[in-house]
Amino acid sequence: MIVRPRPHLFELFFIIKGSIVLKIMPLLTFVATLSAIVVSIYTLKPDWLPKFDGGPFALLGITLSIFLAFRNNACYERWWEARKVWGELMLTARNLARLSQILDTQGELSAARKQLLECNIAYAHALLKQLRPGDQLPRIKQLLAEPVAEAYLQSKNPPEVILRAMERILIQALAEGRIQPIQFNLLEELIQKLAATQAACERIQNTPIPFGYTLLLHRTAYTFCFLMPFCFANTLGWATPFVTALAAYTLFGLDALGNELEEPFAPIANALPINALTEVIDIELMEALGQSDLPALPTAKEFVLM
Amino acid sequence: MIVRPRPHLFELFFIIKGSIVLKIMPLLTFVATLSAIVVSIYTLKPDWLPKFDGGPFALLGITLSIFLAFRNNACYERWWEARKVWGELMLTARNLARLSQILDTQGELSAARKQLLECNIAYAHALLKQLRPGDQLPRIKQLLAEPVAEAYLQSKNPPEVILRAMERILIQALAEGRIQPIQFNLLEELIQKLAATQAACERIQNTPIPFGYTLLLHRTAYTFCFLMPFCFANTLGWATPFVTALAAYTLFGLDALGNELEEPFAPIANALPINALTEVIDIELMEALGQSDLPALPTAKEFVLM
Amino acid sequence: MIVRPRPHLFELFFIIKGSIVLKIMPLLTFVATLSAIVVSIYTLKPDWLPKFDGGPFALLGITLSIFLAFRNNACYERWWEARKVWGELMLTARNLARLSQILDTQGELSAARKQLLECNIAYAHALLKQLRPGDQLPRIKQLLAEPVAEAYLQSKNPPEVILRAMERILIQALAEGRIQPIQFNLLEELIQKLAATQAACERIQNTPIPFGYTLLLHRTAYTFCFLMPFCFANTLGWATPFVTALAAYTLFGLDALGNELEEPFAPIANALPINALTEVIDIELMEALGQSDLPALPTAKEFVLM
Amino acid sequence: MIVRPRPHLFELFFIIKGSIVLKIMPLLTFVATLSAIVVSIYTLKPDWLPKFDGGPFALLGITLSIFLAFRNNACYERWWEARKVWGELMLTARNLARLSQILDTQGELSAARKQLLECNIAYAHALLKQLRPGDQLPRIKQLLAEPVAEAYLQSKNPPEVILRAMERILIQALAEGRIQPIQFNLLEELIQKLAATQAACERIQNTPIPFGYTLLLHRTAYTFCFLMPFCFANTLGWATPFVTALAAYTLFGLDALGNELEEPFAPIANALPINALTEVIDIELMEALGQSDLPALPTAKEFVLM
Amino acid sequence: MIVRPRPHLFELFFIIKGSIVLKIMPLLTFVATLSAIVVSIYTLKPDWLPKFDGGPFALLGITLSIFLAFRNNACYERWWEARKVWGELMLTARNLARLSQILDTQGELSAARKQLLECNIAYAHALLKQLRPGDQLPRIKQLLAEPVAEAYLQSKNPPEVILRAMERILIQALAEGRIQPIQFNLLEELIQKLAATQAACERIQNTPIPFGYTLLLHRTAYTFCFLMPFCFANTLGWATPFVTALAAYTLFGLDALGNELEEPFAPIANALPINALTEVIDIELMEALGQSDLPALPTAKEFVLM
Repeated sequence: MIVRPRPHLFELFFIIKGSIVLKIMPLLTFVATLSAIVVSIYTLKPDWLPKFDGGPFALLGITLSIFLAFRNNACYERWWEARKVWGELMLTARNLARLSQILDTQGELSAARKQLLECNIAYAHALLKQLRPGDQLPRIKQLLAEPVAEAYLQSKNPPEVILRAMERILIQALAEGRIQPIQFNLLEELIQKLAATQAACERIQNTPIPFGYTLLLHRTAYTFCFLMPFCFANTLGWATPFVTALAAYTLFGLDALGNELEEPFAPIANALPINALTEVIDIELMEALGQSDLPALPTAKEFVLM
Repeated sequence: MIVRPRPHLFELFFIIKGSIVLKIMPLLTFVATLSAIVVSIYTLKPDWLPKFDGGPFALLGITLSIFLAFRNNACYERWWEARKVWGELMLTARNLARLSQILDTQGELSAARKQLLECNIAYAHALLKQLRPGDQLPRIKQLLAEPVAEAYLQSKNPPEVILRAMERILIQALAEGRIQPIQFNLLEELIQKLAATQAACERIQNTPIPFGYTLLLHRTAYTFCFLMPFCFANTLGWATPFVTALAAYTLFGLDALGNELEEPFAPIANALPINALTEVIDIELMEALGQSDLPALPTAKEFVLM
Repeated sequence: MIVRPRPHLFELFFIIKGSIVLKIMPLLTFVATLSAIVVSIYTLKPDWLPKFDGGPFALLGITLSIFLAFRNNACYERWWEARKVWGELMLTARNLARLSQILDTQGELSAARKQLLECNIAYAHALLKQLRPGDQLPRIKQLLAEPVAEAYLQSKNPPEVILRAMERILIQALAEGRIQPIQFNLLEELIQKLAATQAACERIQNTPIPFGYTLLLHRTAYTFCFLMPFCFANTLGWATPFVTALAAYTLFGLDALGNELEEPFAPIANALPINALTEVIDIELMEALGQSDLPALPTAKEFVLM
Repeated sequence: MIVRPRPHLFELFFIIKGSIVLKIMPLLTFVATLSAIVVSIYTLKPDWLPKFDGGPFALLGITLSIFLAFRNNACYERWWEARKVWGELMLTARNLARLSQILDTQGELSAARKQLLECNIAYAHALLKQLRPGDQLPRIKQLLAEPVAEAYLQSKNPPEVILRAMERILIQALAEGRIQPIQFNLLEELIQKLAATQAACERIQNTPIPFGYTLLLHRTAYTFCFLMPFCFANTLGWATPFVTALAAYTLFGLDALGNELEEPFAPIANALPINALTEVIDIELMEALGQSDLPALPTAKEFVLM
Repeated sequence: MIVRPRPHLFELFFIIKGSIVLKIMPLLTFVATLSAIVVSIYTLKPDWLPKFDGGPFALLGITLSIFLAFRNNACYERWWEARKVWGELMLTARNLARLSQILDTQGELSAARKQLLECNIAYAHALLKQLRPGDQLPRIKQLLAEPVAEAYLQSKNPPEVILRAMERILIQALAEGRIQPIQFNLLEELIQKLAATQAACERIQNTPIPFGYTLLLHRTAYTFCFLMPFCFANTLGWATPFVTALAAYTLFGLDALGNELEEPFAPIANALPINALTEVIDIELMEALGQSDLPALPTAKEFVLM
């Protein structure tokens, strides 16, 4: 996630980070060059090329604007839903840390609660590892008991292994009468919420916007840009390359932005800062466990918070 | 579901799978041919045909764009809701596998839990069978007890028969005091969630977008395409067939894509991969039952995951 | 609800059922006739009428398209919400049939459960009667106990009478110790869901889209159609009647469709098949009560499922 | 709320109630007069005024249509959410009337249940009084016990006083063992739902759409209407006053309708019929208390249901 | 939040507060000046500048209107969601004040309930402090017990410290048998709702709309405004500076309004009145604790409620 104050007018045109201008630069160059060629031909041999007026563009414009508006909204909603899901993860971690005080006796940290919260930290790292693989394994192993860590490594669904271990801690506490059946339900609900987080993240990550949209939108947009010079060359003259490049910039800029938001967990600057959120969960739960020597909360580096 | 990396520029125009271009090819040919005929007449006998300008198109364009945007959003929402419902099904299966550990004693797999999870697997296959009929029956029979399987075959609502069997397992466990009343509630909620999955899928499958929309949208779109050549022939000349075919492509492409997303359970490439999701549920629950010799998770074949 | 496969191209233009063309035919004739008159005057006495260009139409078009898009979405959402509510009704009936097995002893159907499910069937018919009055009374009387049926006939809110009777069955079972307090809650939740269904249906049926919208939209649309001929007559000539009728068709077609979806419970072809849904609930609950001689599930007659 | 059948074509143009035409009549007159003046000047001294073409209007049109569509949707959603909240209030009243039968013994109306339902009726009137002040006080005082009525009059949040009294009835019943703890929860949930109704109504009533929107939208719309005559005068001639007044009518009609829906509790014809809904709650709960001499359900007077 | 009656027509153009006109005045001046220069050049040396027609503007207009509509909706939804979250906070405070009567014995205010509600007041102030830092600390310290206040000052997540203290009060009451396990759940749910409020506020405050949108929208809008004079100069003449400034006003006005709504907790006039809402919670809970000497409810000062 890019974190920076709103740029001033002149700054605005020279910001690269978070901008998608570099990615679509080859395309803009191509469109401008094509325009220049078309204008040259119109100037030298006006009869070689057919004359277009705005009519067909209005028609293509109808479907193109429907595509763009739809895709933009759909991608933003995926991104925002993903953010909500991670907010839910953090909330559930806090709720568990708070409610599990019921396992303690006389304010003394119980072993069960310690295990439970450590599992919760490990779960956040495991979910992060599933979504944006990195070097989460050492921390996860450090937090899990030996047999759980082993099962974690062998399972087809590793985060679930951690949740099952948490469930067993609760069942054990219930069997030993340390919590009452009705409080088991409260804690169980929190575990189900942790599981819901994973299911929602998997849904967003594994189910992109239908491929047919990408195809149809891109084909329409490219065709649109390639036809533009033929339409404007005879009225705009040598301003055509500039104008078509500009139109292509807004069109493909919106498209490229959609691409980035469609995958809110990808390791890119415009994605969600799920590494930072995991770190915050780690620190808050550590604090709840009574540790005082905690690292600082994560901050943006060069305007980017991962 | 089509699973493939974003195509490059030139690849883009030659992808067929997931594209709807083949389905609407006859129509495009028809529109282009009609355009060619109209242009010929304009060229040879300019007085034979009335002169149109863009006015009527702007009028039709208003309603057409409202139709298309509406239908597109409505279809996508159906598709995405269907995906959410199946995510819920998977989540509930995991929750049941985890929570039902409460039926086990001393980490030993109990008969009740085994039956419960096998019923859950059977339920996923039964739901798949209802939505996208195939050869699910052998697997279902293998998982269900004899009398349940028999009732399954005779019922007017087969998946419900499996849920009733699950309910009886829970009532039995409650009567025998193996679970407490309050935990019965937790498990009962999960069964109700499984039932909710079926109800939501039935709603999506049995209630298409009102037929009146299809009629009105298609009539408008066809009329729009048939009028186009008359409007553009005198300004665009022989570029008309190309331009009208292109406009028809984006118009009917969006429409055809809507058709595919409207039925997210149909056995087509752009539909949801519910076969694969069922397989994943099967494998995960088998793992939860302690089986270690599990098949690999399903992957896309030739970019398509069913 | 109209249930039919997607029509082919030429079929498309000759389908009447589900089409709103008959309803708006007088209007289309009027617009076409007016256009013909205007064209005649333009041809014979060009100075008699003012010359319009597209400008005012663009202005009216802005508000008109906002009206139409808004109303279309609002009506569709009402229709789809109504469908969801009835899906919820069916789901709750199934949940009640399944969960109420807890009232049975040793798989034997208890009197309480029988009464409960019969009340549920009666409730579905009573709700249907409230929304789409018909000959539901005999079936309702057949299902209810004598005093309940009497209270039903005298109440200002008949369906609620049935729910109160169900509540009393549960309270009785609780008082006699046949269910535990915590299971009473589960069953109570289902009864509250049945009540929620009625409240949602009443909301949709009794609160139409604000009358001011209908007035403003219709006034704008009519004015729009009456001005069209003056605008197009001098450019389109004798094609004007055809083009204006076509534009009026899409405009008022969308409007008429909105009218039909606005009232999803009305006894019309495009409305929801709530008679059929009630019948399915009846059959499924009968099956749950162990009856084997069940009627077939309802199917569409001449493409229409009521 | 205006309740009337859809008007016929010619009726349509002469309906005043529910129409916003009277409110915006001065403005329409002003716009038409301005247009007439502009046309006169164009006719007599064509060089005195600058020539506009449609360009600037297309630009203003973009933002204006975004404003109007946004505001329209936002206002309608407020109105519909308010309706849902009152539907929830009615549903909760019914649920309470039904579930509180648990307080009765042997079908005999208990004092606690009587008090509870009378408080519920008083609460509906108190909420109505907060939203649309009238002569609700006598009925409220009649229903509440003496000390509660006194606290009601002195509190900064009167409806809450009634809910606290209901809570105390429940706590009392629990303390006396007349209900079990788990049923206390069910009843408590209903009281929390009543409270949620108030919070939602307060949110809608106290938080209008941000004032900046009103300013920006109105400034743009007025400017738009004042510029129109300059743009159309030279092409439309003496048709200009009629056309600009028509455009102003749709523009400000939509705006005025938005104003009315923005405040769904105001005492105006297009607002929600919350007086009638309160009366229905009153009657239904009276019936639940066994009273048989009930007033008729409220109906619309001169097409308006308040 | 700005609270004032709808302004009359002539008032409308002279309101500054809540208007964003001051913020964008430099830009409007710049656009008008640029226009004047361009018009001068066109008048004196018509050949120096290229001739534009509306074509490119229609193209830019497509993406620009998608951007503006999207951003406007997204910002308003953030603002409205924030309002809902604070409504939930107030509702939960009321629910806690009401339900916690269960801790009292014989209508006597118990120490536990007093602490609980004071913590709730402190929590509201702590949340306000996190979102809109001010001088909330003295009031918070006054309300919290000594050790809690200390932990509050040292924690990385101060509001959570207060919730944990509330949890311990409940666990204590449960351990001492003053509440039953099932009522512990009801109170626990309220605490989790308080925590959910914080998580939702953090999500809105820390996750702005993706920076890429700001960049792309602003670049497009500025370019659009700078190109306008070149397009209109030859048709509008000296009316151009006025028209372009007006178009820029609506464009950047909508943008500036979006900026303000995007941050609903910022200390600006168009933001939410969360100071006032906190004060209301404080007063209502004080009343619930039986204090009678309460300050007046907060009101708007010079039309602004913070």
